[in-house]
Amino acid sequence: MSAVDLSAVRPEPVKPLIWEGDHLRLLDQRVLPGELRYLRCESAGDIADAIHGMAVRGAPAIGIAAAYGMVLALRADPDGVQRAFDLLAASRPTAVNLRWALERMRGLWLERPDLAALEAEAVKIHDEDLAQNLKMGAFGAALIGSNASVITHCNTGALATGGHGTALGVIRSAYALNRIARVYNTETRPWLQGARLTAWELQQEGIPAKLIADGAAAHLMSREQIDWVIVGADRIAENGDTANKIGTYALAVAARRHGVKFMVVAPSGTFDLRCRSGADIPIEERGAAELTEFRGVPIAPQGYDAFNPVFDVTPAELIDAIVCESGVIARPSREAVRAVLG
Amino acid sequence: MSAVDLSAVRPEPVKPLIWEGDHLRLLDQRVLPGELRYLRCESAGDIADAIHGMAVRGAPAIGIAAAYGMVLALRADPDGVQRAFDLLAASRPTAVNLRWALERMRGLWLERPDLAALEAEAVKIHDEDLAQNLKMGAFGAALIGSNASVITHCNTGALATGGHGTALGVIRSAYALNRIARVYNTETRPWLQGARLTAWELQQEGIPAKLIADGAAAHLMSREQIDWVIVGADRIAENGDTANKIGTYALAVAARRHGVKFMVVAPSGTFDLRCRSGADIPIEERGAAELTEFRGVPIAPQGYDAFNPVFDVTPAELIDAIVCESGVIARPSREAVRAVLG
Repeated sequence: MSAVDLSAVRPEPVKPLIWEGDHLRLLDQRVLPGELRYLRCESAGDIADAIHGMAVRGAPAIGIAAAYGMVLALRADPDGVQRAFDLLAASRPTAVNLRWALERMRGLWLERPDLAALEAEAVKIHDEDLAQNLKMGAFGAALIGSNASVITHCNTGALATGGHGTALGVIRSAYALNRIARVYNTETRPWLQGARLTAWELQQEGIPAKLIADGAAAHLMSREQIDWVIVGADRIAENGDTANKIGTYALAVAARRHGVKFMVVAPSGTFDLRCRSGADIPIEERGAAELTEFRGVPIAPQGYDAFNPVFDVTPAELIDAIVCESGVIARPSREAVRAVLG
Repeated sequence: MSAVDLSAVRPEPVKPLIWEGDHLRLLDQRVLPGELRYLRCESAGDIADAIHGMAVRGAPAIGIAAAYGMVLALRADPDGVQRAFDLLAASRPTAVNLRWALERMRGLWLERPDLAALEAEAVKIHDEDLAQNLKMGAFGAALIGSNASVITHCNTGALATGGHGTALGVIRSAYALNRIARVYNTETRPWLQGARLTAWELQQEGIPAKLIADGAAAHLMSREQIDWVIVGADRIAENGDTANKIGTYALAVAARRHGVKFMVVAPSGTFDLRCRSGADIPIEERGAAELTEFRGVPIAPQGYDAFNPVFDVTPAELIDAIVCESGVIARPSREAVRAVLG
């Protein structure tokens, strides 16, 4: 299906995860926006491969996919709960929603090893995510004044979640309230989730938006009034330090210099209270080829090495607000986090 | 010629500009490192097209190419000096070396309209550039301590200049003095001059180096000791504010936060004393397709808009040293610039 055909599916939004009862259909996000292709995942191994291979990405979407992975695993082998947990947990090390969803599924199974209940729990995790995103959208939009210019990074939209999105969900909700004048979205190297996925979602909604190179955001802040940088999160430590897509920290540093406010939008499942601070969050590093090749074509000399961290940590002191479904954590600190998470 | 064949040309370095007396051979940098292809430029129009189309890039190399363009133009039409000047000056608006070289060639011609003298002047501009780079290499290397880790941006090497390089020339000189432990070079979106060209030059020299995404530099500074960010310049204002490749300013902001020193390396022809500050420097913007397509393949949805500035301005206050062939301007200011430029 070509990019042009995609417009035919509007206004019904494209769903990245479709549970079919006996398998999970996953939208292969690696080939968007050029192609709309679903992968058929019939086992936990298929789902772990799809997560590791980044066919599905975005912390909340990964958590949902992993929950369905537990259903498929325990149907195939009711004694294999820990094996399934370990397999799926290893597929992406930084995203804590993944672990959070797996722990919830394992906990239920150990308490009550019932396959129908387990399936209902995965569907519930999926549905809850959308409901949480709509709540976060309302909380976040309320922070944004009128005629706002915002920058967003990576993809945190419907494609990354159970629907609506986290950071992009706030932008959607604020746009619906006529508060957004324009969006700049970074291309987000090396995976180009911004250029490929966020641009596609913004275009579908008709929100005025422009693509920028990751390195152009600081310059943009020096030339134009930008009101907010709005991003998602893969893991948030007890003190509010936030791990998110590589490049987020650079945006936060530039934002502070220019008096641009910085908002993190993530469901409470993204908090990992075992991490005292960002220093405790493991940062996934991936292979050099993601930087030295583009779709298999070399763009750097053969054999050239790369440092390819997938995430970085933005310290809480650079964050003005963390928005989660239970409320807004302003000027995050251990106390402020505890007060909202309860 | 394939990338593998390129190693056969070592240790004789590849020359980006070869003057053949009646035409200029220009290494087409758009197809490196995969292919070694020269363009034959027989007129000023050919050279203007090559500059605008970025077959040749790097402020000093552009200035040299334009000087040869004046020779070809005035041979074809001895009355067309201003027309040739305007044609070549319009090919890239930000690089001041271009204008500086053109003014030098026009000045000589108006004083003494002699084609042989004009050709000799172009060759002299070319030779002087290499000599200046070797001087800057020595000045810059003297600022670098032992066992240094450095970050560089874009390509400022032999490919961007008359030879040796500006910022990459300092790295070469410092490496020869055993002062460089490792280099991280940004890929430099959207043109990937870092991934394609700087990586190639560093690999040829055997300097230990790794590629990073532009957005990963701030994270790298937070995780490892980085001693210097070393970059070139396209235009420097009277007060030291420096226009350079998009992404430079973001590196400078991150460097200051992490106590990493920031060095600009550029010949004195890069200064434009008519610009009181960076606010007076025009910033070239290019088309959206440079971000929305990769070698003709769409990477963003069709019709998506982009903001694509090619340069940004780093304020003097974020620069620790500007190195030019006449000396080092520490903590740049109007007074410090005047003191070194004379």
